[in-house]
Order: sequence, then structure tokens, then C-alpha cells
Amino acid sequence: MRYVTYESRGRQRVGYLDSDTGDRDGGDGGDGGDVVIDAGFDGDMVAFIEAGAPLGQTRPVSDAVLRAPLRPRTLRDFMAFEGHLKNAFAGLGKQIPDEWYAVPAYYKGLPETVIGPDEEIPWPSYTEKLDHELELAAVIGRAGKDIPRARAMDHVFGYTIWNDMSARDVQTRELPVGMGPCKAKDWDGSNVLGPCIATPDEFGAAGIVLRVRVNGEVWGEDTSTNMHHTFADMIAYASRDLTVRAGEVLGSGTIAGGSGLELGRWLQPGDLVEMEADGIGVLRNRVGPGP
Amino acid sequence: MRYVTYESRGRQRVGYLDSDTGDRDGGDGGDGGDVVIDAGFDGDMVAFIEAGAPLGQTRPVSDAVLRAPLRPRTLRDFMAFEGHLKNAFAGLGKQIPDEWYAVPAYYKGLPETVIGPDEEIPWPSYTEKLDHELELAAVIGRAGKDIPRARAMDHVFGYTIWNDMSARDVQTRELPVGMGPCKAKDWDGSNVLGPCIATPDEFGAAGIVLRVRVNGEVWGEDTSTNMHHTFADMIAYASRDLTVRAGEVLGSGTIAGGSGLELGRWLQPGDLVEMEADGIGVLRNRVGPGP
Repeated sequence: MRYVTYESRGRQRVGYLDSDTGDRDGGDGGDGGDVVIDAGFDGDMVAFIEAGAPLGQTRPVSDAVLRAPLRPRTLRDFMAFEGHLKNAFAGLGKQIPDEWYAVPAYYKGLPETVIGPDEEIPWPSYTEKLDHELELAAVIGRAGKDIPRARAMDHVFGYTIWNDMSARDVQTRELPVGMGPCKAKDWDGSNVLGPCIATPDEFGAAGIVLRVRVNGEVWGEDTSTNMHHTFADMIAYASRDLTVRAGEVLGSGTIAGGSGLELGRWLQPGDLVEMEADGIGVLRNRVGPGP
Repeated sequence: MRYVTYESRGRQRVGYLDSDTGDRDGGDGGDGGDVVIDAGFDGDMVAFIEAGAPLGQTRPVSDAVLRAPLRPRTLRDFMAFEGHLKNAFAGLGKQIPDEWYAVPAYYKGLPETVIGPDEEIPWPSYTEKLDHELELAAVIGRAGKDIPRARAMDHVFGYTIWNDMSARDVQTRELPVGMGPCKAKDWDGSNVLGPCIATPDEFGAAGIVLRVRVNGEVWGEDTSTNMHHTFADMIAYASRDLTVRAGEVLGSGTIAGGSGLELGRWLQPGDLVEMEADGIGVLRNRVGPGP
């Protein structure tokens, strides 16, 4: 299943995408010809996930506009792709620290910053180096604490795409302070999620292939099988002595080539950023005007 | 006013502390002989703050037990006291980076980890060096974005004490990765807030004096006038291109001497940690059993 949050007539509701367009009369509210079906659930996506994704009286919605699939309860962003790290650290003239190989470290984002498909990405007034980051994000479906790695995947509801926007000049300045990224990652609209949350059965054993295009040109491509730390590792680590909850989001960190930083290329106002993951779809956003 | 969240008969409600014990018949549910008065508001502290702290039909509560004053919408922790930083960096053999003086950097905590007065502080299974951090915390009262420093204090609802517990051995390992503190600060019960939220009129012009005692012995004392970055600086910085909201919490960072790290002294299972701020009260917690 590919679950979405959609808006129709000023209200946001939970639905899912149906690509079966056979005899159906519904409109085209989704991505690539998908029809949005209302899930028949009163409540937001986090409540829906927490309730075990119960489908009620479903119906196609002809005028649905996709929104961010959820307002995450928390945002943890890991750094699992060694390829990205090698590229990024090379640019800083630094070695990858041993600790990175030992445990899946993360920083935390601000859930209220999340926007969704087709929304304009605001260019913050305080940066000259705005950058995208293509990440795969897992959405927790079931609460747990001290979750063993072997059972961690039972706690995943599904996956979405996370464009973790970054102000690189600010990030470089913040790094020596040792608190992780602050304003480099925190502004209204700095985190883009979507277009849907695809459940694990939507993917084959070969992993999830991700790619990012800027103005139609492929800038980076990688696959989830290249993750040094798996989502099971992350969930096991995050849940040590801590309860993780339905609706929390864990990001993979940037894929190799998933940011402009690695390529020495920088977004410009008005650029079209398309992030694609097989089985999930395309998360498409235009960069807003510069400061 | 000193606002509290209290529990009585299994329900948590908003109240305030009243030290006028003249003819009053109410019990002693607060701290230092204070009486808890129910605020006559249906909703939690964040909703109460957002509504402008409206008092309804008030009544004394005889069996009130204080809880964490709020479940913060977000937790940002700054590092404003130069004295703490000098102590802490000296131990690491490092210089304070220039960027620290330029802007008030912060990391973000997990709101669900918050516990309150008199609750036992869980000792996480993965640390041998558990440490307290005494901080002053400001609670946002009114939403805003791009808030000028000159008007930032209009957005503060009040202040509480924040004991930001830390696993120091883990933090040392996490530092080189550059993501800020992760599991060093994140476990169930790792952040203690309380005992109340005192509004700005509870404090004089001389600042807020804070001290921490372990098993009755004073380990550290400092005053808010020693903050290199003020709360106005922090709010102005945090709100650049970003909406801050009622119920968000901004921590000052540790006062000079507010952690054991600076003294080379370490908490032991069963220790009693008392954090005191004139005008707010005492936040008292016992450290739980070791791993």
C-alpha cells in the first residue's frame, strides 16, 4: 500500500494511491496517474498508523492534492551511506571518524518544519549555499523500547522520501561548536517528505533505488543496499533505553551523490528538484526565490 | 505567577502555586509549603499558554502531586554560559571555537523524554558516566517568526529549571561524528523539568541565581547575568526564517559548575540531585539504580 495525506475542500485526510485505473471514474489527484482513495478514517496519519491502518468506508477522491504524508512525531536523521560521507568529508579535508562505523549516530530535526509534494522550498534569508539531500525515511508503525535488531523491522510501517534541505555555509560554521546542525537545517519548510508512505511489501529484495534530478538532469543515484547502517541497526540503537513511537521518522542520511555539496554544484532560485524512489514515487519541489 | 501541572486522582491538570497560607484550608501539595490552586482550565499546559493563561473557576487542591510543568512542543538546548564551556573544553584539551561567540548554537532534544519533580532519574544501561546539567529554561508564550531581539522577551511566558542529564562517555564518543549529542542525551527520563513555570514578574533585575546540590552539598552556583548569549539572542536566532510556538522550550545550557564533568565528580546510583533557582523553587530527583 502507498498511503498519503491529501487535501480536498480545505480538509486534510488520510488516503491511499490506487494505480488500478480500469473502470474507475475517479480523478487524477496523485502521482503518475494514480487515483487517491480516501481511507475512511477520521484522524491524521499518525493516528491512522497508531490505530493499525484501519480502512473504513473507502471512496475515490477526484480533487485530492497530496500533502506531506505525515507530521512526524519526531525526526531523527542518521548518516548511513558511506559513499556520501566519503564525498562530503573529502571536501572538508577530514577522515571519517571510527565512531561513525561503530554506531548509527543521528541528529534531530524539528517536525513543524515539514512540507510536502509540490510545495515551494523557501530559501532562507541567511544562506548563499542552499543544498538538497536525498534520503530514504522509515516511518515507525509500532512503539517499542530496547528493540532487538532481529525484530526491528516489525516496527517499520513504511518508507517515504525525505529531502533534508541544508544551508551549507551555515553548517560549516556550526560544525566546530559540536552541537550538530542548528539553523543549517531549521527553517520553515526545510524538510520535505513525500509523496506517500509505501509499506514494505511494495519493495523487492534488491533494495530501494533512489535518484535525484535537478531541472531534469540526474545528479545522484544510489540504492538502499549500500547503507552501512541498516534501518534495523538504527531502530535498535535509537530504542536503547528509549521508547520509539508510531509516527516517528528515521532518515537514512544522504545517498552517495544525493547532495550538491558532493559535486560542487549549487541550487539556484527556481530550480526544480525531483527525488525519486522506486516503489514510492517522485517528490517534486521547486526552489523559491533567493534572499 | 508560578504555574504547575499537577496530578490528582489520576488526572493531570494546570494549576498555580500560592504561598499565601493565611486562612486557607488547602493541603500542602507543592514545594516549601505552597498550596496548589487549580486554574479552572480544561487542557494541558501548552494549550493553557497558547490560550493566554486564562484562569477559570479556581480552587485549592489538597492532594496535588507536581508533574513536569509541560510536555514541551520542542526542546532546544543552547550553550550560553562561557564559564561552563571553559571548564568543559579545558577537560577535553580544546579551545572554544569562534563560532560559539558569534551565534547561540543549540541542539534539539526529544520532548517525550521529559519527566518532572521527584521522579526517579533512570540510569541508562549503556553509560558508566551519568552526569547532571543545571540549566535555566525559557518557555515560549507567543508564536513569532523573525523576532527582533528588542522584542524577543515579549515572547517568553516564563522560566523553569531543566536538568539535562547526559551520558558523558557516550557524548565523548559521539562528538567526532559531528551530529551533536544523540544517545548521550536521549533516553526515557533524560530531561527533567520543573517544579513550576515562573512568569518574568517573579524575578528582579539582578538575574536568576541557580545552584545545584548533590546529597545536600553545593556542587555549583551561577547567575543568569553571566549568560554570554541572552534568551533574547536565542529567540531572535532560533526564529530566523522559522516560526517558534507557544510551549516550546529553550535551555540556557549548563551554568558554570552545573555539571559533574567540570569538577571531575560523578553521580552514583541513589544520589539526590537538587536544582534550585530563586523565584522558581527546587527541582529534586533521586538517581535510579545503576545498570
